[in-house]
Amino acid sequence: MPRSVFFVSDSTGITIENLGRALLAQFGDTGFHHQTYVFIDSPAKVDTVIAAIDYAAERDGERPLVFSTQADPALRRRLAGCRGLLLDPFDAFTGLLAEELGKEPQSRRGHLHGIFDRNRYDSRMAAVEFTLRHDDGALPGRYSEAELILVGPSRTGKTPTSLYLAIQYGIRVANYPLLDEELESLRLPPALLACRDRLYGLVVDPERLQEIRSARRPGDRDYASPARCRHEVEAAIALFRRNAIPWLNATSMSVEEIAAHIISDLGLHR
Amino acid sequence: MPRSVFFVSDSTGITIENLGRALLAQFGDTGFHHQTYVFIDSPAKVDTVIAAIDYAAERDGERPLVFSTQADPALRRRLAGCRGLLLDPFDAFTGLLAEELGKEPQSRRGHLHGIFDRNRYDSRMAAVEFTLRHDDGALPGRYSEAELILVGPSRTGKTPTSLYLAIQYGIRVANYPLLDEELESLRLPPALLACRDRLYGLVVDPERLQEIRSARRPGDRDYASPARCRHEVEAAIALFRRNAIPWLNATSMSVEEIAAHIISDLGLHR
Repeated sequence: MPRSVFFVSDSTGITIENLGRALLAQFGDTGFHHQTYVFIDSPAKVDTVIAAIDYAAERDGERPLVFSTQADPALRRRLAGCRGLLLDPFDAFTGLLAEELGKEPQSRRGHLHGIFDRNRYDSRMAAVEFTLRHDDGALPGRYSEAELILVGPSRTGKTPTSLYLAIQYGIRVANYPLLDEELESLRLPPALLACRDRLYGLVVDPERLQEIRSARRPGDRDYASPARCRHEVEAAIALFRRNAIPWLNATSMSVEEIAAHIISDLGLHR
Repeated sequence: MPRSVFFVSDSTGITIENLGRALLAQFGDTGFHHQTYVFIDSPAKVDTVIAAIDYAAERDGERPLVFSTQADPALRRRLAGCRGLLLDPFDAFTGLLAEELGKEPQSRRGHLHGIFDRNRYDSRMAAVEFTLRHDDGALPGRYSEAELILVGPSRTGKTPTSLYLAIQYGIRVANYPLLDEELESLRLPPALLACRDRLYGLVVDPERLQEIRSARRPGDRDYASPARCRHEVEAAIALFRRNAIPWLNATSMSVEEIAAHIISDLGLHR
């Protein structure tokens, strides 16, 4: 029987799921049976979760692991009555923080995935819209509002990275695929020259680019040819260097990692 | 002087930033001065962070709060030498987990935002592509691959929610804005009828819809008129009820909250 793992949250569960999985990854994140319970914000809902945990404990013959974030101390205490091993960062840190800050915590649901600030949230959604409208070289004449413009050869991860930066951080991102002409001349088009301080380059290894392009357009031999992929990557890097554009080889990086590097390299506001 | 808060991570910092902000929200998340350090995965980088923390401690005259996730125990110990109050969930929970599981942790960087599994990551990126291609009613004839289809009046949050579900969870989402004809007849078009088990409805309050539509198309009085907004919302709800489509009023919800509700309601794999 695999060990049962419960992720329990008074909100979306995104944070505790990420944290719990990261902790389990240290022990080889295999052989666990995950279940996630979200919006657990009342005694009745806590009792439902306790019943599920206790059932798993009985069935498995060993304690389930329970990763939980619960801002309400009464609900935290209630959940602690379950037959699992409870791991709650609110429990672990709230006392320390209260002492350090000389304040009592309010049991506001502790997550940050709600809409605390309507203006800030709306501007995040506006960033998503901006990013969609300026995907793949669309509307380069209107880059003045962009906070960041990703440039690179086709299929180097510009679109998903742009969307991630917009959704997660509310950054207005445009992305521009370098054209043959630009890769030959190593010159930026006027629309990009005008906002050179906001450009960021992306490439992946030619072998990886080949793989992605073959999967994407199986019929198009030239698009995915080794020679063309190598040439485009080399020319893009030469163009970045010549124009002093910071850049990244994203071959083995996730969109989250690419996003974190860009924000850090450009000193953008997270 | 505001209290200094450091978010320090051996990876992207996404998890610790969310957790730290959630904890601080309990104490009124104001009057803090945030700094984030990511990819801190070597002694030299840890020393840079320690210098910044110690400088803030000196300048502020009080201990900075340091939220950190660091899977490497040696680097954790090194960072513990700083003059801040260190709060690290790896420190808090790794020992407990090791005891419970009867195993030693490996100091694999503990995040989940890397590419551990190339196939799984690629399928997440494919979901983003699918979702972009099937945005706003595009290609309804090809919904067979969709795992979820969001339906609702125009401007109820379908697009950002779809993109969030794709990026965060790798779910292939299409979204379909209900047309006047469908809102009059309360009948689903054939493309949607064929995948009724995967439909999910979204509405927002008519007043909120008005606000969003006015901001979006300031010139179009009819599109944002109170009567039209009220009618569309009421008709959409009637259509959801008649066709037994689960639905949500997302007025005061963030995309993360909407996503978590949908996944939970439909029992999708997170």
